[in-house]
Amino acid sequence: MPVGTRATVKTLSPSELEDIGAQIILGNTYHLYLRPGHDLIKKAEGLHKFMSWNKPILTDSGGFQVMSLKGLRKITPEGVRFQSHIDGSYHMFTPEKVIEIQNAIGADIIMSFDECPPYPATKKYIAESLKTTLDWAKRGKEAHENLNQTLFGIVQGGIFEDLREESARKLMEIDFPGYSIGGLAVGESKQDLLKITKFLNNILPKNKPRYLMGVGTPKDILDNIGNGIDMFDCVMPTRNARKGTVFTSNGKLIIKSARYKEDFSPIDEECNCYTCKNFSRAYLRHLFSVDELLGMRLATIHSLHFYMELVKSARKAIFDKKFAEFKKAMEQKLQNETLGR
Amino acid sequence: MPVGTRATVKTLSPSELEDIGAQIILGNTYHLYLRPGHDLIKKAEGLHKFMSWNKPILTDSGGFQVMSLKGLRKITPEGVRFQSHIDGSYHMFTPEKVIEIQNAIGADIIMSFDECPPYPATKKYIAESLKTTLDWAKRGKEAHENLNQTLFGIVQGGIFEDLREESARKLMEIDFPGYSIGGLAVGESKQDLLKITKFLNNILPKNKPRYLMGVGTPKDILDNIGNGIDMFDCVMPTRNARKGTVFTSNGKLIIKSARYKEDFSPIDEECNCYTCKNFSRAYLRHLFSVDELLGMRLATIHSLHFYMELVKSARKAIFDKKFAEFKKAMEQKLQNETLGR
Repeated sequence: MPVGTRATVKTLSPSELEDIGAQIILGNTYHLYLRPGHDLIKKAEGLHKFMSWNKPILTDSGGFQVMSLKGLRKITPEGVRFQSHIDGSYHMFTPEKVIEIQNAIGADIIMSFDECPPYPATKKYIAESLKTTLDWAKRGKEAHENLNQTLFGIVQGGIFEDLREESARKLMEIDFPGYSIGGLAVGESKQDLLKITKFLNNILPKNKPRYLMGVGTPKDILDNIGNGIDMFDCVMPTRNARKGTVFTSNGKLIIKSARYKEDFSPIDEECNCYTCKNFSRAYLRHLFSVDELLGMRLATIHSLHFYMELVKSARKAIFDKKFAEFKKAMEQKLQNETLGR
Repeated sequence: MPVGTRATVKTLSPSELEDIGAQIILGNTYHLYLRPGHDLIKKAEGLHKFMSWNKPILTDSGGFQVMSLKGLRKITPEGVRFQSHIDGSYHMFTPEKVIEIQNAIGADIIMSFDECPPYPATKKYIAESLKTTLDWAKRGKEAHENLNQTLFGIVQGGIFEDLREESARKLMEIDFPGYSIGGLAVGESKQDLLKITKFLNNILPKNKPRYLMGVGTPKDILDNIGNGIDMFDCVMPTRNARKGTVFTSNGKLIIKSARYKEDFSPIDEECNCYTCKNFSRAYLRHLFSVDELLGMRLATIHSLHFYMELVKSARKAIFDKKFAEFKKAMEQKLQNETLGR
């Protein structure tokens, strides 16, 4: 899912997202709540109409964002009281409030409110936090009345298998139509992340979607598809593109580099996105070197298209029962990838 | 002509320009010479291919830009020696060099090098300057060998009718396939500008295009079409759009204004551009208030589309022999327009 934090996938129009092959995008509940506000989005008849995007939208819980507001938030059993990062104003997120906000936004898939513990945290802290998140999941499900929206529960538990299992099993007792895996990609090692998704693969129900929140590089995505993950979101392709780093079938490429000054080949010979079909590395390098916004747009189009093709190919390989071979072949090609998460 | 200073019409892709109905765009010789450099553009097989724009391109002479480099340039009969506004490096534009640069860029319509006097300037200064420009026009024509490029001469002469007449008649003796009117829209009053274009309307040949450089507002364009002008370029629609001010059939509209916070109507009810067909004023206001680049894009699309429709309607009215009525009706609608040039 391309990330459309503030009712726009940065630099792109909805028609470009469709051309790229995006099937669903993500909106951030915390950011949309602050600006333009969920009441305004409700008056606009929902986020789809407001931003002119006719395909599905998923909104996150806001849990990760309020966790990030260190020193500006206080967690109680009732919910999280926090200050806006924009103007310092006070706000309160409760499980019920977060459902209400997402209901006003009108996303197709919504999340129950969770406490997303930071990394590192003690096992004791995570165990306590887990109880809160489970209580909030129950309260969220009770508050959830709009049957046009699908409510996912969020599995927490840090890097501890027993806590992850407890979280997953108790959420499964509440019974959600899909499960998110939160609290990863927050600083732990890739090995720990993969250990947890592999572990949960044998616990979460096979007939319901699993969504790994906030991951990742092309290799991370392949690894986690291998661990049974169905859905991902990450700002990586878009944020890196705006800084001039794009993903290709041969690893990453820093388009601003002087080495591309007279390189009239496309970013990726194998790619048929709008950018690669029409523009050269030299042109993109020029746009970035003179700070022309079209550079960010064209790089974003390419990198999102690359991600969409990657998961499309993975999907096909799964149907063809060739995922392991596909993954191995792709990983060899992607070996130049050196970006962190 | 939308202005594509540095090989891109700011924020837009070539496919959007086509959708808007642009038939020709302008590139700035001075800026392209500095970055990415005309040699690089030549290696890219010309500006059309470099920026992926398959319709006509016009490049200006660089005369206006080097005039603007006050204190950084020296004018001699040979040409203009100047320092780059980017890194202070020294460069020399001569009539021959400017043809060579435009030849490398590969525009369809190119300009002979001119001295563009500042405003205000004494009649004596303008008269002297005119001799230089005429000499440069001759040298430019002699240097011009590529028959795929159409070379225009530039009429100068400030706000003095006798000097404008002298400039026009001597250029007509040299014989160009089209004539540009330069040295206006540099600070003189609108009355003076219109006095000069009206005056030149009776002097310049009726069977050749006239291009008024750097003009202007919708009203300026209508007024000058009335004075026989065929071609215009101006950064006004694009620059204003990026700052959140758009042109509509009812005058200008400052989209960032709080009054549009809950206004779910399009920028312009009468418009069928991509922006007006898909997005509300409230959405655009949101994008501008959170500094999302899509806001600049959508505003630019609308304003350029408005300009394209304006000149298209003017063209039709001329063919229908109803231009005077059309102009009057449009001007009444545009009466809210209060932007300066």
